[in-house]
Amino acid sequence: MQRSFLDRLFESGLLIETGVDGLYGRGGRFEDVIAAFERLIDRFGGADGAEAIRFPPGMNRAYFEKSGYMRSFPQLAGTVHSFCGNELDHVSLLKCMDADEDWTAEQKATDIVLTPAACYPLYPTVAKRGNLPAGGGLYDLQSYCFRHEPSNDPARQQLFRMREYVRMGTQADVTEFRQTWMDRGVEMMKEVGLPVEIDVANDPFFGRAGKMLANNQRDQNLKFELLIPITSTTSPTACMSFNYHQDAFGTKWGLNLEDGSVAHTACVGFGLERIALALFHHHGLDTEQWPVSVRRALWG
Amino acid sequence: MQRSFLDRLFESGLLIETGVDGLYGRGGRFEDVIAAFERLIDRFGGADGAEAIRFPPGMNRAYFEKSGYMRSFPQLAGTVHSFCGNELDHVSLLKCMDADEDWTAEQKATDIVLTPAACYPLYPTVAKRGNLPAGGGLYDLQSYCFRHEPSNDPARQQLFRMREYVRMGTQADVTEFRQTWMDRGVEMMKEVGLPVEIDVANDPFFGRAGKMLANNQRDQNLKFELLIPITSTTSPTACMSFNYHQDAFGTKWGLNLEDGSVAHTACVGFGLERIALALFHHHGLDTEQWPVSVRRALWG
Repeated sequence: MQRSFLDRLFESGLLIETGVDGLYGRGGRFEDVIAAFERLIDRFGGADGAEAIRFPPGMNRAYFEKSGYMRSFPQLAGTVHSFCGNELDHVSLLKCMDADEDWTAEQKATDIVLTPAACYPLYPTVAKRGNLPAGGGLYDLQSYCFRHEPSNDPARQQLFRMREYVRMGTQADVTEFRQTWMDRGVEMMKEVGLPVEIDVANDPFFGRAGKMLANNQRDQNLKFELLIPITSTTSPTACMSFNYHQDAFGTKWGLNLEDGSVAHTACVGFGLERIALALFHHHGLDTEQWPVSVRRALWG
Repeated sequence: MQRSFLDRLFESGLLIETGVDGLYGRGGRFEDVIAAFERLIDRFGGADGAEAIRFPPGMNRAYFEKSGYMRSFPQLAGTVHSFCGNELDHVSLLKCMDADEDWTAEQKATDIVLTPAACYPLYPTVAKRGNLPAGGGLYDLQSYCFRHEPSNDPARQQLFRMREYVRMGTQADVTEFRQTWMDRGVEMMKEVGLPVEIDVANDPFFGRAGKMLANNQRDQNLKFELLIPITSTTSPTACMSFNYHQDAFGTKWGLNLEDGSVAHTACVGFGLERIALALFHHHGLDTEQWPVSVRRALWG
């Protein structure tokens, strides 16, 4: 079933094969849906006055190291490596490539890693500004993110876009923010005719030690997901996530409120490709044939 | 002078420091300018009926290897590496990180490299479709691209967006396409009040052998650039490039015309960040204060 939806996406030109599982080009009509859904997000969130920041798809490796990502999700991260040799090294490199041998071992890590989630570069950026203003902070982010998990489920891509809102403030501020977006998420998906459920969830922590972290996260209701059936009806796909970090990021990055106390943080993420795929799965591959109410919600 | 323009960009929030030279976040107003300029491109190119494809910022490593990029520009490429070990390896990795030692040597190359120019993933994609249709092909691309050249010149970023049109057809088709866009480029920049010159150019080929390739490229007028002064008046910045590949890509990738003969190709690229920076440099950091004619060209 997964394979056949992906095949139909390729045939229709909505996604474009690149020879690597989970790495796809997007056709113009696919992009139109993403752009339209982002405008819908703006319509729901625009009046909140978030500060818009767009980070590129790579981030400072030093910040990434400090984030603890390699402790929790080492298998998903992507570090960026470059050739740093001289002309003689280049001759060896080309010989190696010509002989069809592995030439990548000589590549050296740069100062950049691929962004694993749109909000990762935000915390150190905001921390550098000093204490948060009165009322805390609210940020609007979007970037391509990388996760090394090759799959032929079109809803599990290695490079995909995540739109996020991040709230920094008191516990009450950020939990209210999270609840507001859970309600909005349900309402938005209703407007575009998608069946949803919201459930407690956990991140894919690595290894046996990770199981404990996952259980802990669930027990404390730190993560919820908005699920929509796409490639499976028995295990629907997380299209939004709602995460409360308590004061963990505030403590790690030195994010303080106006009065100097440690900020709590929460983030709400939209998996833009997943939402587009859910729309194509439920309403068909031809956007012209989508229900009028859905088209109106997306294109006015 | 370079440093001070970058500082002013940071202070105004148009660009956001990340701690790595050439890697910046973008403020909302910076993004508004990029979006507006892309609409201007659409206005000039929209009627041509190009096929829009949006590739993610990474591409298939096998295609990248075949492209010959590592032969010509090894110093600029970025390969994506991941942790592929088991739980014991993970323990070693974390020990290494905790001791502040280099943990990146154990990362293994994935099947993905960062896209060096927006059109690189296109050629193998189109080749797989079989012969080109009558009249050849025309494609509209945009993606984040990576070049490993850390710099504090804001016009030389490691991750930046390139918008491109690519034409495949006869020699006459593709050279006419290139000339059309040189003319359009001059006209577009005039509409937004930027001083330009067009000059013959060469790519930054690596090493001493690269000098010959560069001279060759210049002698044959294969590459032109549209230059605008940004951080230096004596050496203006390339904001567009116009490249004629002869039948080199056609031969390499097996791109054939309807009649089976090898296609010629040309591409025209817009450096979107550089154009935005040129606008901010020439018209000031506050878009509200830009000349009425420039605002009208960008925002209607």
